[in-house]
Amino acid sequence: MIPIGVLTDSYKASHPFLYPPAKERVAYGEFRCSFERDLTDQRILFYGMRYIVEKYLERRWTQSDLEDSCSFFSTHNVGYGAYPFPRELFQRIIDEHDGWFPIKVTGLSEGEVIYPHTPVYTVTATEEFAGLVTWMETLLTMVWYPTTVATLSRRIRDLIEVAFHQSVELEMHYLLDSRLHDFGFRGCTCVEQAIIGGTAHLLSFTGTDTAAAAAHVQFHLNEGRPVGQSIPATEHSVMTAFGSEREAILQTMEQFGDGAFACVMDSYDYANALEVVLPTVIESFKLKSGGFMVLRPDSGDSLQAVLDALVAADRVFGSDVNSLGFKVLRGCGVVQGDGIDYNQIQRIIEGVLSSGYSAQNVVFGMGSNLLHKIHRDTMSFATKLSFVRDADGASRDVCKTPKTDVQKFSLPGLFSVKKNAIGVPMVHPLGQEPEGPELLQVYYDHGPVTLKRSFDDIRKTAMANWERLPKVADPISPALKEKIKLATANRH
Amino acid sequence: MIPIGVLTDSYKASHPFLYPPAKERVAYGEFRCSFERDLTDQRILFYGMRYIVEKYLERRWTQSDLEDSCSFFSTHNVGYGAYPFPRELFQRIIDEHDGWFPIKVTGLSEGEVIYPHTPVYTVTATEEFAGLVTWMETLLTMVWYPTTVATLSRRIRDLIEVAFHQSVELEMHYLLDSRLHDFGFRGCTCVEQAIIGGTAHLLSFTGTDTAAAAAHVQFHLNEGRPVGQSIPATEHSVMTAFGSEREAILQTMEQFGDGAFACVMDSYDYANALEVVLPTVIESFKLKSGGFMVLRPDSGDSLQAVLDALVAADRVFGSDVNSLGFKVLRGCGVVQGDGIDYNQIQRIIEGVLSSGYSAQNVVFGMGSNLLHKIHRDTMSFATKLSFVRDADGASRDVCKTPKTDVQKFSLPGLFSVKKNAIGVPMVHPLGQEPEGPELLQVYYDHGPVTLKRSFDDIRKTAMANWERLPKVADPISPALKEKIKLATANRH
Repeated sequence: MIPIGVLTDSYKASHPFLYPPAKERVAYGEFRCSFERDLTDQRILFYGMRYIVEKYLERRWTQSDLEDSCSFFSTHNVGYGAYPFPRELFQRIIDEHDGWFPIKVTGLSEGEVIYPHTPVYTVTATEEFAGLVTWMETLLTMVWYPTTVATLSRRIRDLIEVAFHQSVELEMHYLLDSRLHDFGFRGCTCVEQAIIGGTAHLLSFTGTDTAAAAAHVQFHLNEGRPVGQSIPATEHSVMTAFGSEREAILQTMEQFGDGAFACVMDSYDYANALEVVLPTVIESFKLKSGGFMVLRPDSGDSLQAVLDALVAADRVFGSDVNSLGFKVLRGCGVVQGDGIDYNQIQRIIEGVLSSGYSAQNVVFGMGSNLLHKIHRDTMSFATKLSFVRDADGASRDVCKTPKTDVQKFSLPGLFSVKKNAIGVPMVHPLGQEPEGPELLQVYYDHGPVTLKRSFDDIRKTAMANWERLPKVADPISPALKEKIKLATANRH
Repeated sequence: MIPIGVLTDSYKASHPFLYPPAKERVAYGEFRCSFERDLTDQRILFYGMRYIVEKYLERRWTQSDLEDSCSFFSTHNVGYGAYPFPRELFQRIIDEHDGWFPIKVTGLSEGEVIYPHTPVYTVTATEEFAGLVTWMETLLTMVWYPTTVATLSRRIRDLIEVAFHQSVELEMHYLLDSRLHDFGFRGCTCVEQAIIGGTAHLLSFTGTDTAAAAAHVQFHLNEGRPVGQSIPATEHSVMTAFGSEREAILQTMEQFGDGAFACVMDSYDYANALEVVLPTVIESFKLKSGGFMVLRPDSGDSLQAVLDALVAADRVFGSDVNSLGFKVLRGCGVVQGDGIDYNQIQRIIEGVLSSGYSAQNVVFGMGSNLLHKIHRDTMSFATKLSFVRDADGASRDVCKTPKTDVQKFSLPGLFSVKKNAIGVPMVHPLGQEPEGPELLQVYYDHGPVTLKRSFDDIRKTAMANWERLPKVADPISPALKEKIKLATANRH
């Protein structure tokens, strides 16, 4: 068990010694840019705050937490000397506050769709604990991850949806939910990451092999209702365990041939598997009704591999032309899970459609690119101080305005976030906001507050928000812009 | 609590239904290429196996684990239908094997330095459990992460070491240990990742702000002996909490000025902070002995920012020319933590040295690029089946040899890994290996085995191995090469 006192960057332990006395101090977190700086679609799908709050903030400090933390910091300075640790302050948390970390945290609801520079959380610390305002930054910042996965997954849904409108009949549009499948479990760094990232993907799709995330959503967030789905499928080790690929496929059909199942096809020679092996096994498969075979290429050029599979399947299984003029395979599909990212999906979809096949024939399996190859910098997340009420009671707005990188400015003051007429969450200086519900809700206030909302509900909200809102919007209100201009002019 | 049965990719649950009966089945894991395909330095620093084994394999299945897993899979198929789950098989694990997962796992010792295609672990499953041989692949594969961080961190040590040999006097070489500082906690996706990655970095350096990793190493892996170090340091929120930067720096000096401490310098105007603010605060600092001030730029071009700090510090603090002809600042240094990666470090070091300053003046703070911006593909990790003893007792070597991507071939047979005369771990077909100790050690055998080795010991081994071994070596023995050639010729 890691002592709670080390769940932060080391330097945070020195900050209570540095901050001047204050009556109140407020910090906030924001994404400073859109996904990979995309100026044509700046929407951000906010998700993942509750996990952090429940797992790490709703944990009381005990005397032994404090002793363990002191023990760690006692040799953490250079030369294994004593690193400053505010022991007395934490002793007061235990003695006078029942061990609850003495801050108030507000944040946007999960499923809100926002634009860069919208505060996603605020932390308020007061009086003797004002120096702890940024202690939790390290953990709270990690909301960058589920939000970035959720945003990427949702952007890909848009991409596939366009192809669905072109090439899939309306009554088959429900298939969109399963067209992006999470292959990312093993490409994660650890189980916790897989659970957090895999959960975020399930906001926009149902397809997942990250079973731990699907179980987490179902049993912890959704009152037992399942959200993730998969199908039985072979891996290379299964294919090569048989004397021949033919035997492996026949066994898979024997076991799972009355439903959907997938076979990986490149263990030895992909072209041979498609052109020689597949036709010889199909006769026995035709005996079963309800069967649906998914062919999985796993190497070579991804577009070519998909097209090869479609053409081979068309020859073996046959196809029908739908009312939009695109071919739909009979009882067969393709899943491409090698080298898949946003750009490859776009390229493959274009190739598939221009070859006359409907987008419904292809599922994309995305691994590291979905759950891992995104970074805190993908949407440039940061937490900064924004407001101080000094020891003498005077209030000051505070911000960072580095001349050397204007993109790294932070917002000054206290904030209110409210939706405008078309639903865009706008940031106002507190006190200058319009009527309407406040989007910054209390997540924690010197102890837990109730955070119960089903995943189904969050999915619905996320879906509706994303579809309703414009791709680009400026969330900073005119009054706040005025304050920023003043702050930038008055650099210290 | 996530049920143990969902700690794998969904499709694994279908594999016991597919694998043909066998007496024995063996799979292994390997890195298929060097760090970012670097052909000039192919060394890989293996680390992180014990964590996975202790956390996930040394956990007994209970009846309630089984019920929870069955419950999850009962609605995990397409349309929320029942997904195949081998209930009877797992019931036998609980009833007949005390709940221990029925496989044997061997692996290389942590701290071994290897080359691509060396098996880092093997999994053996026998008789009725032979179909579970790849069940644990998802979790075991995650060893890619600590090994990749360890390798990257160590490669950077080499880079800085070259500059030390050029510009740092021998008695100051101990400073090398702290020249790369882990700034990566908040750029991680979760706490578990930060602990695993931050630990791997500590194999080659002592500098870290990922306190959770430093505490994990100290208390769980190193019998209480500390390995990680940091220094008190400000953040932007601390700097902007004061009325002026001058006040913030004075307070930091007041609190920590008798030791090493760092101040971030770009909250408002970096040039002004260096040229105007710094000279005015230095008088009071000079009063304290033992003080060491570290200037932290955090925006702008990283090389220019470092050079500006060095020149400003030289003017204010002064410097001495060492015996190698390079300037060493008096009681001052620079830490650059913005936009740092391998290439930037190389560029900055070159710029610093060619400006006449010693490499000892500069510490690099590396965040996402150290702990997150690496992938399973960085060294292409994979697990594949390699050997089967069929139900009739006949033995077969097995491998994947996709025509469409020759880099994705896997090794056939059973393996022995032994060091050759110069210490390179060589892979031999089992039975054709030379004398000497076997490097594939037992990590788990149908239950826990003792895995006690101090982190200090692993560090020492890693350091010695890395320094002794050549940058490039071919670890495949001639006999194994012969087998691979045969297998590739006999594609099914």
